[in-house]
Parts: sequence; structure tokens; C-alpha cells
Amino acid sequence: MTTLGIVKRNIVRADQAAVDRLTRLGAATVHEAMGRVGLMKPYMRPIYRGAQVSGTAVTVLLHPGDNWMMHVVAEQIQPGDIVVAALTADNCDGFFGDLLATSFMARGARALVIDAGVRDVKTLEEMGFPVWSKGISAKGTIKATLGSVNIPVVCAGVSVNPGDAVVADDDGVVVVPAEWVKKVADAAEAREANEGEKRARLAAGVLGLDMYNMREPLAKAGLKYID
Amino acid sequence: MTTLGIVKRNIVRADQAAVDRLTRLGAATVHEAMGRVGLMKPYMRPIYRGAQVSGTAVTVLLHPGDNWMMHVVAEQIQPGDIVVAALTADNCDGFFGDLLATSFMARGARALVIDAGVRDVKTLEEMGFPVWSKGISAKGTIKATLGSVNIPVVCAGVSVNPGDAVVADDDGVVVVPAEWVKKVADAAEAREANEGEKRARLAAGVLGLDMYNMREPLAKAGLKYID
Amino acid sequence: MTTLGIVKRNIVRADQAAVDRLTRLGAATVHEAMGRVGLMKPYMRPIYRGAQVSGTAVTVLLHPGDNWMMHVVAEQIQPGDIVVAALTADNCDGFFGDLLATSFMARGARALVIDAGVRDVKTLEEMGFPVWSKGISAKGTIKATLGSVNIPVVCAGVSVNPGDAVVADDDGVVVVPAEWVKKVADAAEAREANEGEKRARLAAGVLGLDMYNMREPLAKAGLKYID
Amino acid sequence: MTTLGIVKRNIVRADQAAVDRLTRLGAATVHEAMGRVGLMKPYMRPIYRGAQVSGTAVTVLLHPGDNWMMHVVAEQIQPGDIVVAALTADNCDGFFGDLLATSFMARGARALVIDAGVRDVKTLEEMGFPVWSKGISAKGTIKATLGSVNIPVVCAGVSVNPGDAVVADDDGVVVVPAEWVKKVADAAEAREANEGEKRARLAAGVLGLDMYNMREPLAKAGLKYID
Amino acid sequence: MTTLGIVKRNIVRADQAAVDRLTRLGAATVHEAMGRVGLMKPYMRPIYRGAQVSGTAVTVLLHPGDNWMMHVVAEQIQPGDIVVAALTADNCDGFFGDLLATSFMARGARALVIDAGVRDVKTLEEMGFPVWSKGISAKGTIKATLGSVNIPVVCAGVSVNPGDAVVADDDGVVVVPAEWVKKVADAAEAREANEGEKRARLAAGVLGLDMYNMREPLAKAGLKYID
Amino acid sequence: MTTLGIVKRNIVRADQAAVDRLTRLGAATVHEAMGRVGLMKPYMRPIYRGAQVSGTAVTVLLHPGDNWMMHVVAEQIQPGDIVVAALTADNCDGFFGDLLATSFMARGARALVIDAGVRDVKTLEEMGFPVWSKGISAKGTIKATLGSVNIPVVCAGVSVNPGDAVVADDDGVVVVPAEWVKKVADAAEAREANEGEKRARLAAGVLGLDMYNMREPLAKAGLKYID
Repeated sequence: MTTLGIVKRNIVRADQAAVDRLTRLGAATVHEAMGRVGLMKPYMRPIYRGAQVSGTAVTVLLHPGDNWMMHVVAEQIQPGDIVVAALTADNCDGFFGDLLATSFMARGARALVIDAGVRDVKTLEEMGFPVWSKGISAKGTIKATLGSVNIPVVCAGVSVNPGDAVVADDDGVVVVPAEWVKKVADAAEAREANEGEKRARLAAGVLGLDMYNMREPLAKAGLKYID
Repeated sequence: MTTLGIVKRNIVRADQAAVDRLTRLGAATVHEAMGRVGLMKPYMRPIYRGAQVSGTAVTVLLHPGDNWMMHVVAEQIQPGDIVVAALTADNCDGFFGDLLATSFMARGARALVIDAGVRDVKTLEEMGFPVWSKGISAKGTIKATLGSVNIPVVCAGVSVNPGDAVVADDDGVVVVPAEWVKKVADAAEAREANEGEKRARLAAGVLGLDMYNMREPLAKAGLKYID
Repeated sequence: MTTLGIVKRNIVRADQAAVDRLTRLGAATVHEAMGRVGLMKPYMRPIYRGAQVSGTAVTVLLHPGDNWMMHVVAEQIQPGDIVVAALTADNCDGFFGDLLATSFMARGARALVIDAGVRDVKTLEEMGFPVWSKGISAKGTIKATLGSVNIPVVCAGVSVNPGDAVVADDDGVVVVPAEWVKKVADAAEAREANEGEKRARLAAGVLGLDMYNMREPLAKAGLKYID
Repeated sequence: MTTLGIVKRNIVRADQAAVDRLTRLGAATVHEAMGRVGLMKPYMRPIYRGAQVSGTAVTVLLHPGDNWMMHVVAEQIQPGDIVVAALTADNCDGFFGDLLATSFMARGARALVIDAGVRDVKTLEEMGFPVWSKGISAKGTIKATLGSVNIPVVCAGVSVNPGDAVVADDDGVVVVPAEWVKKVADAAEAREANEGEKRARLAAGVLGLDMYNMREPLAKAGLKYID
Repeated sequence: MTTLGIVKRNIVRADQAAVDRLTRLGAATVHEAMGRVGLMKPYMRPIYRGAQVSGTAVTVLLHPGDNWMMHVVAEQIQPGDIVVAALTADNCDGFFGDLLATSFMARGARALVIDAGVRDVKTLEEMGFPVWSKGISAKGTIKATLGSVNIPVVCAGVSVNPGDAVVADDDGVVVVPAEWVKKVADAAEAREANEGEKRARLAAGVLGLDMYNMREPLAKAGLKYID
Repeated sequence: MTTLGIVKRNIVRADQAAVDRLTRLGAATVHEAMGRVGLMKPYMRPIYRGAQVSGTAVTVLLHPGDNWMMHVVAEQIQPGDIVVAALTADNCDGFFGDLLATSFMARGARALVIDAGVRDVKTLEEMGFPVWSKGISAKGTIKATLGSVNIPVVCAGVSVNPGDAVVADDDGVVVVPAEWVKKVADAAEAREANEGEKRARLAAGVLGLDMYNMREPLAKAGLKYID
């Protein structure tokens, strides 16, 4: 019955080519293209600005103050993966530092997304290993209790299945179910294709009110202009 | 691709008899029996103390400031259900008050669990309709945007599928996957069966240190007594 | 230029009879009748449940950790007033206890609404003096710095002018501009008048979907029922 | 060097008679009498309203998610003690429930003060065992890591030494260093002795402005009355 | 009665020359010069460091999760304005991104101050369009409900009238009532004029205790030096 | 009895040479070497990234909204010191800006650690004076109430005695009791000595599972691999 103490080795990863298309699109565009779902809570922030990644999720469920399973998940990483770490209860200890990052990078991980704290952030930035986390904390953890690897988890308010696509940048972290990735990439690219022209028109002084034909629905809704 | 704008009518509910066994056991015991998973964030509090319920989940996904789907979910309620309401983004508006409670009760709902705010709490207490929520707020909502009913949702950090069992009391809210309910009820009852004797021994002055044979493992772990 | 160090003695209070009509209506109904504005942040909670009051605002602006002006505002209280205390910066010290409450009651105050902490809450409940506050704290304050009395303030996110009406109950605190009070009372009573019939129909099992004619707009918005 | 893994058996407790005098005085008065120090953060709330206790501190330092040391501290409890539980990092799991409460009561503990969560709160209220905590959570804990008992700890922002006096009521929790208890009790009683007369005068309509001779210093500070 | 659904076109802006003098002075100096009022809550942070602006406020009131009025306010922007966006309830969705920023810049806006979230922050920094916000979130919003433009609002705890001056930098956001701007600029410049000499003396090792003649008042207040 | 109104002039500082060894080691390594205690709450963040310091603590206890004692503590600073500022109640006002920083630097202070807000952060970064704080706020403070200097304080959850060593970097702030500094420096250096080799092995693809011999204890604990 329990979901603890399990490591699932064979998971089906989202199509890598489709996942890679998401990187450039970024979290906001992908989130919109999905119908405005899949976004982690906005408290998930990058430890340094400017990183923009996508990858396939390997998941790990941790207990407060215990990072034992981070070593277990390392073995399950394949190139192109992003580790998504969830906790069984709120905790902001530093579950991850430069040594684990060295190991994750050696395995091909592109990033870590963790609903807890991390440390050695200066070194992580120098190494170029991006992390989105709930906080930064030097607090060390123990290695005493089993969690699980590659089971479905809830991370920062979003359900994540192993193999799902993850997109992360300065705007936040979005999770795309594996079976949706191609469609979402298509929709996001279509969405983006329109943006250049829109931007040019807005830059030229055209108002969104006119470009999006909002004046009539606004009037219908009762908007009144007064002097 | 989207998960919005859908109402699923036929859901498979957990076995009602098993669900009902969970009521008396309460959130803490059920949570332990499940292996310490399934507990919603502790910010989910009852609007009044003393209620203790269990039921089968009908789920609803709402947008910030918009309670339109609460009327849609009302129709899907069957006697013995608990409505579990999740949001697409953090918001504490008052999505639910005495009129909706009247409707939910008429349909046979046992409670509401909502990751947002509620209002008319004095009346809700007089009506005996328990709610576990993130907060209390008189803030009214609009009816403009589609969410969904009876899709899988994440509510207060826990993944909930329609038909899952929900147990709630003063200690919080626990979700039991439908297929686990009987086993969890068995395990929780077994767990509870031991508690009476333990309580009696502890009340008589026996220490947990002795009753649980902790002295040796503590010494092994290095515990030192000094004067 | 400064707004500090001023006590305004003559303020125009909202019509008392109209203010009194708001008491029974409560915060949620009044807030809706006003067009969903005027509600203080939901962190403003009553120190005990069950109180329901309305009154005219006398305002006071305090500094963090300094309750000197609470004694100054006491003199400006008239029967039927509610003291609304705002701070120049976030602080949760205990600015108010049973002695000040004794004084406020002697002056005819109906309640205190304070964007900070209070203490002696057990005694305050015994005295029947309701307070809505940001928190409870035994932390004492000093008497060293001037604030002001009866100037416009922002309390828990809402602009309050001296003389405005304040309505508070278990659902929160609503502020009604003095010049709106009669219209709001009318609108709130009209709103309430419909509720009895609605409640009866909902209790009889009629769905909000039908009672409010929502099925068509929902379908138009694209809602789909699946099995 | 480490402070972990230690149980100190012989501690010097504050004078019990003096400690007992603090109970009736309550947290706010004792805190004022001490010079406005020693108050725990106001997020420390009683799990039920109305309890008012004082006692001598036995301290315990816990790790996030691990309540092993709660069993160790039980043995060190003497009648009249209050257990003060601190954590090495923020965590709101339920470290304490009705079984441990049974054991603590059997040992003579008067209360628990814990900078974390507790559970079985309904039963704890029925048992009459008061707890001041950071939260309520059904989340269970493990027994894997050593903390310490009766070392100096920081609990909810206050330094607590074993043997110090603790006073707790609906207003919060105050810690009085053991060597100060008599003086603080004297000062608090003196403070309180004046309150009856003050209360009577305020109830009769005398203003604090006059009773405390504040008009002159306010004028000196520049307070201006306008109409 | 309602304040929703209104766009006020003609507003009286603070004197632009005086407003421009505030830029160099910065938030902290202006706030002090005003008598320590007018500062928004410190949770309002710039999306990138180093920007320092002032301008005249055009205000907009939004609903949680709905950015429709951002397009309406765009039309009311004049060169030198800063858009101040308030919400009817707490919400951290991403109401603003690079397209709206393009439009705002084309209209001459100098910045956005919003009591909610924004997105596309990397692009906004590249564009050099500064935003002070409550958070960063990729969460998209809908366009369904009317708010208002150029009515008085409360933004992050401060009352803002259209036309008021806004000063923002790494220290936060200050609002100066339009009629005070010249006096505040004078006072702030006077304040600043003294700072160079003070800084030189402090750098030379002179203590604030001596420079500000604090030793006597500290002794009078009872400060004691011990060894 | 009181701890307020006192300035202790002669304090015993930790051995400076040992303190200086801690700088390079950083907060995380020092915290681990101490046995995972002594870390301030993770809300303590540097006002700019990249600073890494250690020093001896001079302590100051402040009241909410009152920075008078910051001038008093300045006189007690010796070269190599770090000022540690604690508050009697939560408050995020800006207690410290560029003028005080000029004075502190002139006295030889290496940094400020303050459980409250600071301002002039842009200038502080230009001056190269690092601050770890709870927040950034332009809010000015008054000079009216006595606190104390060089008494034991609790700052951000950690007990600090004057003379203790403080280590701070991007990962947070750690306090090392004066009498432990040498041992902690030894232990931290020993700890670090192993890291180079570990890092090389992990970079070469060796798993922590193997390097730390975790496979057996994980299996013993019941970890199961499934496909």
C-alpha cells in the first residue's frame, strides 16, 4: 500500500526532441499554451538569474531534514533529465550542495527543482548548475529514512509524473504531462509566432484596446469614461 | 489537451462502508496507517472545532476569485461525498457561504475541503456543515471562467482523484486513494487496537523509553547522560 | 506637510441609524452590496467568535511598538464609535489590553479594529469588548512618539476616513464610506430579502445551476460533460 | 564540542513557590514586570483557549520530523515542570499527541511549549493537557536522530535554560530566568496591585490622558488639536 | 455608489519638474523628508536591481487573476507616468509581461508598481522597463471583469491618488501626495545637503554619539556602561 | 533584573586567527563541522550576493522602529567585529543605512547581521559593506528607547554571546561559540580536506551510493527497486 521505499528504474520519458523545443519558449509561454495549468507555486525561485532549461522529470520524495534519497535518485538520472524533489512536509533545510551537483552533472542532469532549500549556491552558480528551490539554507540533513524515486509526486503544488517535461526560467517552473509535450510545443510556438507582430504594433503605439478589439466588450460590460 | 471546461459525471467512488470506518479513526491515525503520506498542508483548518468526518471526494478546480464551478459541482454530489476544491493559483477569497452550503447539504455532501477562503462561518457552524479551508474571508467571487469537475486535482499539497476517501478532523485533512481504503482502514484499526493498552501503561507511569525498548538504540546512537 | 502629530476633534460621522442597520446584515452581505470593495485583508480576525457589530470610525495612526496615541484617541470616542487603528509599519505587538478596553467602553466604543496585536484577550472576552486584530501578543509597547487621530488611514489594506461606517463579524471587517451608508444598507437589505426564498429552494434540492439559469452561459463558455 | 546527544539529569529548578505565584499574573503582566523581554514569538498559540499555567522548564532539542527525544525528555520531567521543545530547523510536523501527553501527565508535567506542530488536539483538550505550539498537524514523525535534553535552547525566539520559569496563557508564552523569578513575581504583583484602582477610574470615565498625566508631554512633543 | 467600471480621463498630475527632482533623492530620503509616511510595504521589490525612478501615478484597480484593465489603463498613460496597480484581494498571478511593457513604454510610462505578480522578467530587464511587484509568476490571467482606472486605490498598504508622485528604487516605493511634492523635494534636498559633511565626519571616525549629541539624552534615559 | 539599558564595554572576543580561518570555509561547512547547530533562520539573506566574511560578534538589542542603540554599539566596535542586531519583537523597518555603515566601517566592522530591515542597499553594495538582514525597507526609525549592547541576544533563532564568531556568506549566517572556534575551524578544515577527492570521484561518475557505501544500509532499511 505504501509509496515509500520504492525506486522505479524504467520510466517512460517524454519525447526528448519535443522537450527540447520547450526550452526557448520559456515557462510563461508554455504555461499559457497548456491552458494556464501546470505552474508550480511562485515561491519556487532560481538560485541565480538567467538560466532557462527544459528536461524530463525524474522524481524523488524526501522527508523533512533527510536527503538520503538524493543519492538514490542520482543513479536514475539520464542525460537530459531534471530532478524534481518533493517533500512529505514543509521544510527548508539545505538538501543539496556542490558535491551532489557534481554527481548530478556527471550523470547528465540539466537542473534540480526542489520544494525545499539548497546550499553552496555561489559554487552552484560557478558550476552552471541551475536550481529552482523554495529557499537557500546552509542547514545540513541526515540520511536515515526511506523515501521513493520515480513515483508520482506533488512538488510546489503541481502533480509530477516521472518522465513529464519540466520547463524552468526566471518566471518559474512549469510541468507538462509527457503525453502533451508535442501538442504543447506546437501550441506554444504558434502562440509565439504571433508575438513579434503584436510587439511591433504595440511598440508603434497601437493600443491593446484596439489590437485585441476590447473596446466593445468593455463597453458592453459597462465600462464608463468620465472626465 | 486542456483539463479545463470538463465535468466528469461517472466516477468510481471508494467503498462507502470502508470509508465510513475511517471517520472514527481520525486524520492522525489514518495518516500513520498509510505510511505517513496523504496529509494536506497544516494551513487547512476547520472553520469550527469538533467536527470529524469522512467521505468520498468529488473534485472541483477553480480560478482565483471565481466560484462559478461550485454550482456545477453541486449537481455531481451524491450522499456521502465531500467536495474537494482546488485552485489554479493561491487565493483566499470567500468562494463558499451559507447558500451553497444549503445546496450541498441538500445533495448529501458531508463537508467541503477548499484550498481557499469561505464565509458565513457563523451560519455554517449553526447549520452543522463543516468546512476545512485555508482561511475565512467575506470577499465575494465572480462567475466568469470555466474550471473543471471530477478531474484529478492538487489540493493543499495533496493529489486527489475523484472517488478517493477524505478524512478530516481537528488535526487536519487526509486523502486515501480509493483502492487503498480497505487496507488503510484495517491497518488503522489494528494500530488503534494497541493504543488502549499503551495508554493505560503510560498513564501508570511506564515510560515510552521502556515500553518501546528505546534505551538500547538510543545508547547505540551515542546518547549520553550527564549530571 | 506632515500628517503626524494631529488630533482632529470634529469629524462628521455617518448617519447612526443607517450604520445600525448594517449590524444585522454582516460583513459579507454589506461587502457584496457595496460592489465587492471595502473589505480588510482576511488576516484581520476577531479575538473571540460570535461578535457582530457596526459603528462609526474614529481613526488613529500608530508607530510600531508605541501605543501612546491609543490614550489620545480614547478622548475622541463617542457612543457608537469603533476605533480603527493603523500602523506606519508592520508590527504585531500588543497595543491594547483590558485597561484601555475599560476606558474605551466607558466612552461608548463598540469595538476596536487594529492592524497589529492585542493582549488580555481572555479578559476582553469576559468584558464583551470585541476586537478584530492581526494577532494576539503579550508584547508591551512604549509611549514615546506622536501619531495622529482622525486623519485618513489605511488599515489592513483599506482606506478609512474618520466617520466612515465599519461592519465586523466572524467573516471579517468591511468599511463603508460615510456618504454611501444609506445606499449600501438599502442594497444589502434588498439583497438579503431574496436570500430566504433562495435558501428554501436550494434546501428543497433545486440546483443553483437552474435557479440562477447558469446552464446556458456555461455551455456557451464551452463546458463539456463527459462520462 | 557538540551540543547534541546529551541528557542532563540534574538541573536547578527555579523556586517552585515563586513560580506558582506567576500563574495567576499571566503572560502580559509578567512580561511587563520583566522589562518587556522574554516573550516568545506571537505565533505560539494555545491549542485551546482558557488555559493558564506556569512551571519550570525542562528543555528538549529536536530535529525536523523526528520526535525520538520526546520520549527521552519524559523521564526527566518532575511534577510542576513544563516541557519546552525547540527545533534545529523550522518544521511543523505533529511531534506530540495523546499518548505522549498521557506519559507527560503521569510524570507531573503541567504543559508543553513546542516550536513545531502537535496532533490529537481534541483529545488533548479533553484530557486538559495544555499545549502552546506553532501549529496543529497530523503529520507523524520518525525516531532516528539524537537531539538533547536539558541544554539551553532557543524556542520561538527566546533563550530558555533548563529550570527557568515559564508562564503561558491566551496571550502567549513568557520565559523568566530562574534567578529572576522572585523579583519578577514581586514586581508583577506590585504592578497588578495598582490595576484595580486604575480600572475603576477608567470605568468611571477618567481618561488615561489625565490619569497618567500625558497631556503635558504630548503637548511638548508637539501634538496639535484641530477642529 | 460603486467604484468599479470607471475610467477617469482627466487627472491633475503633480508638477513634473518637482517630481523629477525626487528621482535622484531616492525612496529612503523622500520618505524621511515626508515625515516617515507614504512607504509601501517592504514586500514590494524591484524585479531587477539598480533602477531608480520617479513619476506621476496613473492608477488601476484589478481583480484577482484578471488583467483586463491593464489594457484600459495603457491608454491613459502620459509620458512621465508610473502605473500603480492595486488589487481587490491578495493575488500573485503574472498580470504583466513584455507585450504590455512594450505598450506602456510606447506611451511613455517610466515604470509599473503592482501589488501582484509579473512575468517575462528577463525580457523586462533587457528592455529596461523597471517593475516593483509583490512577486514573479508565470501564471496567466483572464480578461473578464471590470475594475477601474484613475480612482484612489490602496497599493501595498499606501493610499494612492491619481497624479500623486511615486519614487522607487532598491529600497522600496514611496508615494508623495501631489500637493506635497515641491515641499517634499525641498525638504529632501535640504536633508541630503547635510549628508555629505556628516558622511565625511563619520568616515573620519567621529561617532554618531558625538555628532548628534546623543550621550546626554542616553544618560538621562538611564543608559549604563559596565565593564 | 532588567537586561535593558546596559552597555558592556569589555568583552572577550574569540581568537581572531581562528575566526579568520572560518571565512574561507563558509557557512555550510562550518555549520556541519559544529554538528549542525548555530545556523540562523534562512530568512536572513545578504543584501548583495558574493560577500563571504567572518568576525567576532558585538551584539545590540533594539526595539521595533527604534535604532538609537545602533549609534551606541558603533563605539564598541573593534576591527574584525561583526555587529549582530536583535529585536525585542518582529519588525522590518530600515534600521541601518549608508551613514551608519560609514561609521561602522570607520570603526573596523566587517559586516552587519540584523534581524530586521536595512536601507540604502545600493550604496551599501558600492561601499562594499555586507549586510545579512530579514528584509530591505526604506522605513526610517526613531531614537527614543534604550536597548542594550553586548548582552546575550537571540538573533534569527540563534543565541549569540558577545565575542562569539560569526560566519556569513550566500548560504546564510552561522554563529560559533567563542570557546569552540578553534575546534570548529579544525573540524571544518578536516571536513573540507576530503571534499576535493570526493568531488573528483563524483565528477568522474562514481555514485554517492558507492562512494559512501549506502547500498547496504538502504537495502537493510527496505529499499526496493522495481521496473
